Amino acid sequence: MDMYDIIRRKRDGHELTDDDIAVFINGCCDGSIPDYQISALLMAIWFRGMTEAETAALTLRMEHSGETVDLTDIDGLTVDKHSTGGVGDKTTLAVAPILAACGLKIPKMSGRGLGHTGGTIDKLESIPGFDTALGREKMISVVKETGLCVVGQSSRLVPADKKLYALRDVTATVDSMPLIASSIMSKKLAAGAKLIVLDVKYGSGAFLTGAEDAVSLASLMVRLGEAAGRRVSALITYMDEPLGRAVGNSLEVAEAVETLRGKGPEDFMELVIALSADALYIAGLGGRGECADMARCAIKDGTALRRLRAMVAAQGGDPAYIDDPGLFGKAEFTVEVPSPAEGYISEMDTAAIGRVSTALGAGRLTADEAVDHSAGIMIYKKKGAFVKVGETLAVLHTNRERAIAGAVRDYADAIAISQRPPEKAPLIYASVDSGGVIRA
Amino acid sequence: MDMYDIIRRKRDGHELTDDDIAVFINGCCDGSIPDYQISALLMAIWFRGMTEAETAALTLRMEHSGETVDLTDIDGLTVDKHSTGGVGDKTTLAVAPILAACGLKIPKMSGRGLGHTGGTIDKLESIPGFDTALGREKMISVVKETGLCVVGQSSRLVPADKKLYALRDVTATVDSMPLIASSIMSKKLAAGAKLIVLDVKYGSGAFLTGAEDAVSLASLMVRLGEAAGRRVSALITYMDEPLGRAVGNSLEVAEAVETLRGKGPEDFMELVIALSADALYIAGLGGRGECADMARCAIKDGTALRRLRAMVAAQGGDPAYIDDPGLFGKAEFTVEVPSPAEGYISEMDTAAIGRVSTALGAGRLTADEAVDHSAGIMIYKKKGAFVKVGETLAVLHTNRERAIAGAVRDYADAIAISQRPPEKAPLIYASVDSGGVIRA
Repeated sequence: MDMYDIIRRKRDGHELTDDDIAVFINGCCDGSIPDYQISALLMAIWFRGMTEAETAALTLRMEHSGETVDLTDIDGLTVDKHSTGGVGDKTTLAVAPILAACGLKIPKMSGRGLGHTGGTIDKLESIPGFDTALGREKMISVVKETGLCVVGQSSRLVPADKKLYALRDVTATVDSMPLIASSIMSKKLAAGAKLIVLDVKYGSGAFLTGAEDAVSLASLMVRLGEAAGRRVSALITYMDEPLGRAVGNSLEVAEAVETLRGKGPEDFMELVIALSADALYIAGLGGRGECADMARCAIKDGTALRRLRAMVAAQGGDPAYIDDPGLFGKAEFTVEVPSPAEGYISEMDTAAIGRVSTALGAGRLTADEAVDHSAGIMIYKKKGAFVKVGETLAVLHTNRERAIAGAVRDYADAIAISQRPPEKAPLIYASVDSGGVIRA
Repeated sequence: MDMYDIIRRKRDGHELTDDDIAVFINGCCDGSIPDYQISALLMAIWFRGMTEAETAALTLRMEHSGETVDLTDIDGLTVDKHSTGGVGDKTTLAVAPILAACGLKIPKMSGRGLGHTGGTIDKLESIPGFDTALGREKMISVVKETGLCVVGQSSRLVPADKKLYALRDVTATVDSMPLIASSIMSKKLAAGAKLIVLDVKYGSGAFLTGAEDAVSLASLMVRLGEAAGRRVSALITYMDEPLGRAVGNSLEVAEAVETLRGKGPEDFMELVIALSADALYIAGLGGRGECADMARCAIKDGTALRRLRAMVAAQGGDPAYIDDPGLFGKAEFTVEVPSPAEGYISEMDTAAIGRVSTALGAGRLTADEAVDHSAGIMIYKKKGAFVKVGETLAVLHTNRERAIAGAVRDYADAIAISQRPPEKAPLIYASVDSGGVIRA
């Protein structure tokens, strides 16, 4: 069976076999299938979709396209977490310490990410000395010592995803359910944790705009993970504004620390507790309500913050920055964005705010750019807030003087103000696990 | 507008603008658009189709992607012809001389072709001395002198088609109506003739299996050509067996000569007269019936054969081979294929017979292979014929001794014999011109 026939049969709506998918993934990785055939198949998949059997085969073949992480040296239940991403999403920095405080083990691999801010790795690297390039042995010893460890993703994991994602990104085939699900889950499976919690976002600020699409994607990923012998749970969460107040690398670390001190923004706190409770629930530590209480307790009694501090120290970072986030270097310029009108904030164009953050230096547009750890945005007025003319909507932090005027204008443009308070959808729409979908 | 957006909009079912198509075709030719984006767009077009406006824009942008031929030096009505191809299709060799005999001018560019036999160029090159690599000046002087000239297609014409076809061929995107129509018509437009006749085949031996698909494709091509200021007519013809008796290069030249002597196989003669009449009709030389009579007359009075002889001589070929096709070199081996059963020939797997011809040496599998001019098949029993056990179905001509046993077996396997005579569909299904579709 050659690649031409595989393309043709997918184009014609036939189901690919596991052998077909093996030919495809092996050929992607060894370079024997040219990019133009890969992208033709990706477009055919975009149109025809994949059955669940095909998606499962694709996920497993991708998982095993490179190295997989062996976590059997770690005693206890290992947990991994994935979010479909969003502006201001620093949940790993709060959830991982909470889970560690509750006895789970979190050997987490994270990416650097492109776009509005860096990834979790970039955020942690704003702490002086913090080393994210640990080998497997060192990562496991940090997990044994502190319960958690966050390292950069090894390029040896799931090389097929790297190849496919690069092509999807330039051929308009990113937004395909089976391709998204297999991309995410192959990496989670290869990373080795027994439990996986997912945060699937929908809304104007997210990749998927409709809640039911998010439920479908989450359900599919849960089934793919369970079929591979993992326990998986997913939250469907609404994003039509940035999460929390901080957007930017050190700004987000500081906000995560504040949250572990019990003083985080309400929406971020709600999501952190819900995701933590999900993980604790599939770990079998209690009912959903009890698990949420355990998570709150880990914040209240300071154990979660101590776990974060211990991890930072174990990874070579200066724990003084956790004790006092005020130590983080400030950007040269901090500029207020005044409200141009009086009324209620009725819309926040989250993607546009992400672009402002990038323009300020917090994110990168190409993989080899550095991020500015001190740059970003502190948002003081979120959706539903009442503002007067001239009142501060947000403060922009940057070292790029020439970016300021444009960023102030673009931030103001990203905000809509109306005379009536907007309706707000609940942050958490539903929870999905192997038992089905539970509406929040 | 960049290529990513063009792919995305086509994927989502939006109509591309002429500017989009210009970006696409220019980028194909200057190498600025990578193959993986081209093939993703081709697959999106396969799924979404193209509107007639898009297809027309694509055709014109392709036409002008390279040189176009200026035929204004030729007095009189210039005609071009295209067939969607088939096993044993040597119609150009008979139709062009007939049209020249009736006063039209046929400056014809032909390809070498891959597959079962060579193209028209390869067939003519089986005549010793025949030169198909004439420049434009020389081609025009041959047309002025003899009324017709057949040369190889310049690689400077329609480079966009070369690029796109190579990718379509390996990404399962060949069989898309707008891509087929624009590929054929861009080349016909670039070749410069004022009149264009098309032979669109359907049936088990053709690219399109259904008659109505062939009518749709033909109608589209007629409209594309008329919109570009040409007069176009198309025949829809049925192919479920090879055309005529000869398959192979010099064998087909000999059959064309026999046909111009009035002694050709009935099916081939019918098609030659119909295609010739179509061209004479759109040239305004009379009603369809009168035009068919003119074509028959050009055979009967020998003028068509004299035109062929004159063209061969003008292009450096030895006209003695036209006077006596018996001069063509014979293949070393001629082997009869005996009928394995008694009954009526009910099916001929035309594609399989084409593959036998290639195996005997008449065709090529890669563009740089040479063809064996003497190799091929003479078919003595066609669909509907009654045969006894052991009676000769066909004679295989080859210089490849090792290919013989397999070719005999494969030829016999390509023939189905049944106890009842098969129904035969008429060769000519319909005729399409700017006035609409006329069922034969």
